[in-house]
Amino acid sequence: MTTTDRPATEASEGRAYEYQSGTFDPELVEVGRGTAAGELLRRYWHPVARSAEATTLPRQVRALGEDLILFRDARGTPGLVVPRCCHRGTSLFYGKVEATGIRCPYHGWLFAADGQCLDQPCEIDRGRNKASYRQPWYPVVEYHGLVFAFMGPGEKQPVFPRYDIFEDLDDGEEIVIIDHFAFGGPSDAPCNWFQTHENAMDPYHVFILHNAISGHQFDPKLEIWPHIEWQRHEWGVTATQDRLLPDGTILHRVTETRVPTVRVIPTPTLTVLGATNNLSWALPIDDTHTRVYAMVRKPVGVPPQGLPVYDGDRSWFDLSDDEHQVYPGDYETQVGQGAITLHSEEHLAASDRGVSMVRRLFKEQVHAVAEGGDPAGVHFDEANAVQTVVGGNYIVGPDTDLATIPLAESMQALAPPPARP
Amino acid sequence: MTTTDRPATEASEGRAYEYQSGTFDPELVEVGRGTAAGELLRRYWHPVARSAEATTLPRQVRALGEDLILFRDARGTPGLVVPRCCHRGTSLFYGKVEATGIRCPYHGWLFAADGQCLDQPCEIDRGRNKASYRQPWYPVVEYHGLVFAFMGPGEKQPVFPRYDIFEDLDDGEEIVIIDHFAFGGPSDAPCNWFQTHENAMDPYHVFILHNAISGHQFDPKLEIWPHIEWQRHEWGVTATQDRLLPDGTILHRVTETRVPTVRVIPTPTLTVLGATNNLSWALPIDDTHTRVYAMVRKPVGVPPQGLPVYDGDRSWFDLSDDEHQVYPGDYETQVGQGAITLHSEEHLAASDRGVSMVRRLFKEQVHAVAEGGDPAGVHFDEANAVQTVVGGNYIVGPDTDLATIPLAESMQALAPPPARP
Amino acid sequence: MTTTDRPATEASEGRAYEYQSGTFDPELVEVGRGTAAGELLRRYWHPVARSAEATTLPRQVRALGEDLILFRDARGTPGLVVPRCCHRGTSLFYGKVEATGIRCPYHGWLFAADGQCLDQPCEIDRGRNKASYRQPWYPVVEYHGLVFAFMGPGEKQPVFPRYDIFEDLDDGEEIVIIDHFAFGGPSDAPCNWFQTHENAMDPYHVFILHNAISGHQFDPKLEIWPHIEWQRHEWGVTATQDRLLPDGTILHRVTETRVPTVRVIPTPTLTVLGATNNLSWALPIDDTHTRVYAMVRKPVGVPPQGLPVYDGDRSWFDLSDDEHQVYPGDYETQVGQGAITLHSEEHLAASDRGVSMVRRLFKEQVHAVAEGGDPAGVHFDEANAVQTVVGGNYIVGPDTDLATIPLAESMQALAPPPARP
Repeated sequence: MTTTDRPATEASEGRAYEYQSGTFDPELVEVGRGTAAGELLRRYWHPVARSAEATTLPRQVRALGEDLILFRDARGTPGLVVPRCCHRGTSLFYGKVEATGIRCPYHGWLFAADGQCLDQPCEIDRGRNKASYRQPWYPVVEYHGLVFAFMGPGEKQPVFPRYDIFEDLDDGEEIVIIDHFAFGGPSDAPCNWFQTHENAMDPYHVFILHNAISGHQFDPKLEIWPHIEWQRHEWGVTATQDRLLPDGTILHRVTETRVPTVRVIPTPTLTVLGATNNLSWALPIDDTHTRVYAMVRKPVGVPPQGLPVYDGDRSWFDLSDDEHQVYPGDYETQVGQGAITLHSEEHLAASDRGVSMVRRLFKEQVHAVAEGGDPAGVHFDEANAVQTVVGGNYIVGPDTDLATIPLAESMQALAPPPARP
Repeated sequence: MTTTDRPATEASEGRAYEYQSGTFDPELVEVGRGTAAGELLRRYWHPVARSAEATTLPRQVRALGEDLILFRDARGTPGLVVPRCCHRGTSLFYGKVEATGIRCPYHGWLFAADGQCLDQPCEIDRGRNKASYRQPWYPVVEYHGLVFAFMGPGEKQPVFPRYDIFEDLDDGEEIVIIDHFAFGGPSDAPCNWFQTHENAMDPYHVFILHNAISGHQFDPKLEIWPHIEWQRHEWGVTATQDRLLPDGTILHRVTETRVPTVRVIPTPTLTVLGATNNLSWALPIDDTHTRVYAMVRKPVGVPPQGLPVYDGDRSWFDLSDDEHQVYPGDYETQVGQGAITLHSEEHLAASDRGVSMVRRLFKEQVHAVAEGGDPAGVHFDEANAVQTVVGGNYIVGPDTDLATIPLAESMQALAPPPARP
Repeated sequence: MTTTDRPATEASEGRAYEYQSGTFDPELVEVGRGTAAGELLRRYWHPVARSAEATTLPRQVRALGEDLILFRDARGTPGLVVPRCCHRGTSLFYGKVEATGIRCPYHGWLFAADGQCLDQPCEIDRGRNKASYRQPWYPVVEYHGLVFAFMGPGEKQPVFPRYDIFEDLDDGEEIVIIDHFAFGGPSDAPCNWFQTHENAMDPYHVFILHNAISGHQFDPKLEIWPHIEWQRHEWGVTATQDRLLPDGTILHRVTETRVPTVRVIPTPTLTVLGATNNLSWALPIDDTHTRVYAMVRKPVGVPPQGLPVYDGDRSWFDLSDDEHQVYPGDYETQVGQGAITLHSEEHLAASDRGVSMVRRLFKEQVHAVAEGGDPAGVHFDEANAVQTVVGGNYIVGPDTDLATIPLAESMQALAPPPARP
């Protein structure tokens, strides 16, 4: 037997035969209880449902890889409990909700919204020891139409964070929850939450994906090549995109990500100028599924904001699978990275600096919790409950008071305007 | 970095954050060959199909986690064999059934109902060694319209057990097989068989599930709170429910479970009084699927028995998923315990004593077999083939001869009538 | 506790209780990179798509267990690359194909058909280091309407093999690709490729499956019991089937298998006599899925060849599942062997000799590669590119020049004609 040894030619290099599938960074993507990243996530409040979904009809919800039952007792208190009844294990999805709690359908044990057992009708004296039974539960808070849960250890429960952009509504204003995935696509996506999250610090993809590839999905001004900077804060990472407009003013666009799952993307259709009117949370449903909850403040009677339009008047939901291939958007490219992207296979470049910063800040918080500390953005006293949002689409002219413009320093780079790289 | 240590408040206790998913008891639930419980199950005959399903068209059946092919040769003998042909492995599902057996479609080997190879048409002299080949097979018996198989070791094959309630039919009587899951629901359920089985010794759930939760599914008399006792026998566990009726008579209801999979639930609509007219077998299809075969003796031309009715005249099959959530029954609560319930997470109470007794008796048989013995309810001589059933809905008045009433002792507790616990 | 020990009777033998599920031979069936058999397969060119499927719209293909993206750049060059973009990992399925390659939709990196990165539009100077990036790729060749890929190590890439039966087309002739699975059934089958492959050296099943079981699927002459011999060659295994026809001539039918995946089955409807007009490749999609690509040379305007007909004028695709059970064909019996057949459970007989020979030759090549050698049928110089096919349906009469008939020696056994075994 002889072996034919022939040298590889240059054209032979880089063949997929040598390609090995890679690995993901668990500190970025894992959401389960007991994982390093999952324990970090469990130090924050997460939206798990719309308030309208908490009713006297039990509802299955899934968050951070845990299956739970959401209900609202007949007195109005929402409850979030483990599905499996602590007595004989049938699902409280089939439970009957009463004034004071949810009753198991099998043998009638009744549990309050905080899990306390209130009745055991088949036991003597309706349960002499019932006070010692508690259905596993999580505390919930309602905020502007969303139900938030704290799924971490009780002694680490922070105050619920509110946001200044949603405080002090004027007459004629309202706050609504909208269903969309990053401005185009369904709100649920079959991929890990982090790849949808870091996208918010990746402004360059706007010029490629949302313009060159799939047509003009956003306002034409966003096609002007901007000067981009990123800023790290104690609470998150921001990106500034500064564009010199034809009229001599500057479009100073600021986007945010906040640890762990909040992102602020001022409407890319530029229908809202000034401070952002919206903010989103990425809910890690589990390691490979994500839901986006977006909250918008707006005048009553006005549609929340424009979504990308294809072929005149069609939305993402009107396109066929074949058309989604031809007109990919955020949903396709982020889901297209796989159920969990493989970080070891990436080749990050200079334009990916924002993504790197989001990852680094997140992993520092993971490490802080692993070492026994509290992560960024967590507060335990009500005085610190309201957070200040800086994102927005700011038009800056010669008369603008720069003191009113967040992160105004980045605009210094526009004199003289940068050449397109 | 500092750590915020705050004491847990009472309201913080019992959070799902501390909840750990549990484990099941393999000695109750496993059905596979080689498992302790699976070997016990293999010491009994199990129904695997209706007789009408054994035809010259091969049929796939699954029992105790094993896939098999059922057929009936053209002379009328049913056969049950491994699907994979012992020659080259294609499925006998595609076989041609002839007078003497089933012929593999690929190369034509012919196997009798007992697996014996009868022909090898592509071999010299049609197979000089064919007598040494045998397709793996199981013996079957037909009984009142069901095909039963013995799937254990040949030297442990017991006589086929018959039941006195199905012997000596009068003219005008017949025995039928009916499709339902514990009086409401499909006959196949995606959960382990044991959680459907032990339910038969859980009379308390009737008052909750079948009355308080989902309306009046059974006869109103069953809503009277009874005196309940359980009795252990060599062959199974029984429960007595005694109720003092308004007319001074006693409704003495007796239900049974028999090792391993038989349960006797006299019709809860009370349309049949006296000894039960029905008996059911739970067939463990595999670890997470169960079929219930129910046999009913009844007058010709009369419907088998009433099933629960919802909203006037609708059966389980007429309800939507949303309606099943609102009107759960046995199917929903038992499947709702999960594919295999988690015994380690249960909190059994006094009302669960019957369930505990069923489990204990079953596990004792598992241990008996593991130690080389024969389990309860198994007989090897035909003289012991007929079993005596005690279940029924008995109306006992002052003139009733208590010697004719099974387990009559339990009624002594009704003088004076018990207060509702 | 006593044990009932009773001797097994003869009727008890061979019960499925003793049957253990078996194992497959990994050297025959595994296709993944790094497995012994998978590495052998990677020394040959495999068809992965029709040429018409390589367009400017990217297409997902799967071959040897690897997911790939096929495209054809706007200048006509086909490319086959790993789906996951080497930059940030989104799928090139959503890429835009341009004149020189495929552009990632997310950040616009452009890759040539050979994976070379040609543009990085978000980087300075459109990517100063772009020459150092290469998307993992495989070389492809187009041949008579099929795209073939070489998925092995570059230094082992052989010349692309052509076949003499597809060379030198006359006017009025054409070569077409047809969709069918071994003459009846869909071209994709959910089973390992080897069980479809070895079937080609199993002529006996024709008399059973295609005649006795499922009616007369092929030409009636094939129902005459033949004299069968098998021949081993350096490049594969052949089978000869010789039949004395009523007119005194001999039908000398030759079928082939060639390492690794080629089989030559002259049309069994005998509509083409002489050298075969067709040849097929079994593409191992992955361990449990197979596609058959069949190439046919024929006069323009004539249908490729007759497929089996059921009930007058219905094809496989017109039959219901119930009808497929009653009229099984190659698809049913080969898929019926399971996703991967269990070689340890087989009982090969004298009529299976051809199957044994195909397996032995294949495993010898697996071992040759494992030991560092080159396998059979692989050539590295263009002079050896054209392969000679010997399969065909030859009618041999007294005037036939036997020198023109491949493997004519086998016909000597027909004098005197063999008795049917």
